[in-house]
Amino acid sequence: LVVHVPIADADSSTPRPILDLIAAHQSFVLSGHENPDGDCLGAQVALYHLLHGLGKRVAIVNPDPLTRTYDFLARHTPFSSLRPGAPLPAAEVLVLLDCAWLSRLGKLGERFAAARNKIAVIDHHVGSERGDGSVAYVDHEAPATGSLVHDLWQALGRALTPPAAEGVMLSLVADTGWFRYSNTDARALKLAGQLVEAGVDACALYDRLHRRNQPDSVEILGTALIGARLRLDGRFGYACLDRALVERAARADFDTDVVMEPLRSLDRIEVVALFKERQDGAIKLSLRAKGGIDVHAIAAQLGGGGHKKAAGATLRLPIAQAITAVEQKVREALQAAGMSVGP
Amino acid sequence: LVVHVPIADADSSTPRPILDLIAAHQSFVLSGHENPDGDCLGAQVALYHLLHGLGKRVAIVNPDPLTRTYDFLARHTPFSSLRPGAPLPAAEVLVLLDCAWLSRLGKLGERFAAARNKIAVIDHHVGSERGDGSVAYVDHEAPATGSLVHDLWQALGRALTPPAAEGVMLSLVADTGWFRYSNTDARALKLAGQLVEAGVDACALYDRLHRRNQPDSVEILGTALIGARLRLDGRFGYACLDRALVERAARADFDTDVVMEPLRSLDRIEVVALFKERQDGAIKLSLRAKGGIDVHAIAAQLGGGGHKKAAGATLRLPIAQAITAVEQKVREALQAAGMSVGP
Repeated sequence: LVVHVPIADADSSTPRPILDLIAAHQSFVLSGHENPDGDCLGAQVALYHLLHGLGKRVAIVNPDPLTRTYDFLARHTPFSSLRPGAPLPAAEVLVLLDCAWLSRLGKLGERFAAARNKIAVIDHHVGSERGDGSVAYVDHEAPATGSLVHDLWQALGRALTPPAAEGVMLSLVADTGWFRYSNTDARALKLAGQLVEAGVDACALYDRLHRRNQPDSVEILGTALIGARLRLDGRFGYACLDRALVERAARADFDTDVVMEPLRSLDRIEVVALFKERQDGAIKLSLRAKGGIDVHAIAAQLGGGGHKKAAGATLRLPIAQAITAVEQKVREALQAAGMSVGP
Repeated sequence: LVVHVPIADADSSTPRPILDLIAAHQSFVLSGHENPDGDCLGAQVALYHLLHGLGKRVAIVNPDPLTRTYDFLARHTPFSSLRPGAPLPAAEVLVLLDCAWLSRLGKLGERFAAARNKIAVIDHHVGSERGDGSVAYVDHEAPATGSLVHDLWQALGRALTPPAAEGVMLSLVADTGWFRYSNTDARALKLAGQLVEAGVDACALYDRLHRRNQPDSVEILGTALIGARLRLDGRFGYACLDRALVERAARADFDTDVVMEPLRSLDRIEVVALFKERQDGAIKLSLRAKGGIDVHAIAAQLGGGGHKKAAGATLRLPIAQAITAVEQKVREALQAAGMSVGP
């Protein structure tokens, strides 16, 4: 039987405490952060099938329903999301994947807090070992949360089923940018090879994730790129989606992050920004760094957050002023890094 | 000592004959097809460093110089290309990589034919075992020619140097579409993991290959996408680059294939076409299939060639007529496959 120890006393760097927890309980509910991404969902899929195969009762309940991009996961794995008034599934243990705090689950987090399940955390983010889990498996070096769930399969000596392998692969490709980001290490690529052996069709997964766009997406992308501008000696590029284009993109389920990619592919570029005008007039800003500029520091000055290479903020300014404000912050960051910024 | 046997008598499915050839000779010249792609160049890099490390004399001579996309290879590996009047390096053995016929080398092929070197072939294309090589290592199942050169390193028990690992990785990512195409198997991904262990920085390689675009490339892409059209119930999409845009793309070193990607990412699409108007008025057609339609068969009807999923042709028609002609062929192919083509 597992003793419910404070997390500081448990070793979160090995899967052992989580494995003991699994052995000692029969019912589990899996969840993760709001707007769950590929890593969060893929890790849930892989853990669902592990627990199910061990004869446990298990349910996935997320703050948000599956978006169209990820709807294919439902063919092998039951997903559900919070509905106001509907009861949560009874479970001894709540497992948070790809996050470590109930506050990241919005209203669902409040419901879970009231339900007082035992909480376990599986995550690869820095600091998650100090999260809401009383048991945790946290590895900052792991390319994805899904690869930590793969460790559990391995530790139990079980061969991944094809749906579980697809889940781990989804996690991996989501968090490595399909093996393009700097976290693409030998471990990630070798694991991907094992997952293909376990039944994943990499090409079909790519098509499912990235090649089911709506017809209007081509013109939306073209329109946004035509309006893109380069500033600061070609080191800063940005595109804007006005209210009408944001609405078109939403109707077409278009992933607007795609607009930043051709800008990020420019030789001299250091920082890319995307400005999206919301219905309420506020500007949603996304920032991406190609080289060493810390866009999290820029976003933080504007009241936002994120990571060093990908960050965002919400600006309550007319779009022209928002652009000027961001350009000024980027100019300062480039100058601080000793780079030319043009006239 | 190697006996110069007709290829029909040698076993081209193992690296042994090529290894014997290497052991028995001191000087090698490496070459490949015209407009060498990443697989051809990467395989040459990997073989250059293997032979060099074995104390052999070795030179790379290609039909065409390195394009800007691949210029970074020259920092570790000397490349040269045919210059009219300049002598070819003297070598006992000519190794053709990623092709099997001297005719694929254009004028350089004629020069090599006259030089009468012994010819070896390393390739992964169907039929290459019947090429111009008197010795060959051909594996149709290999994801890239570079992975066959990796086999030679392994067979000789030598650890890949970082430049050689980068060469094999370039081959792999070129021919698997950065691990997205249907030839992305477990072997390809595990090999990629080994190459990262041997010193390849996957993220840096991606940036070198795909993120050194010129400023104008964003607007060229936007302009081409704005003009893209969908036909045949959304199953056929095309974009056109008129003479002016083709010229802009050439000045910006812009890889126009990129224009087809957003069209290929549409849910219903089966066939994508790109029409490029050349300076002489002829239309260069590129075709890509997403599903099962054989675009090689379509291109062949128009006097072109290629593969099932990627083909092309040159059409001597005004652009509007070229579009009509291609649309008609695509319509017939879709109907033959039992697909709707709209009104």
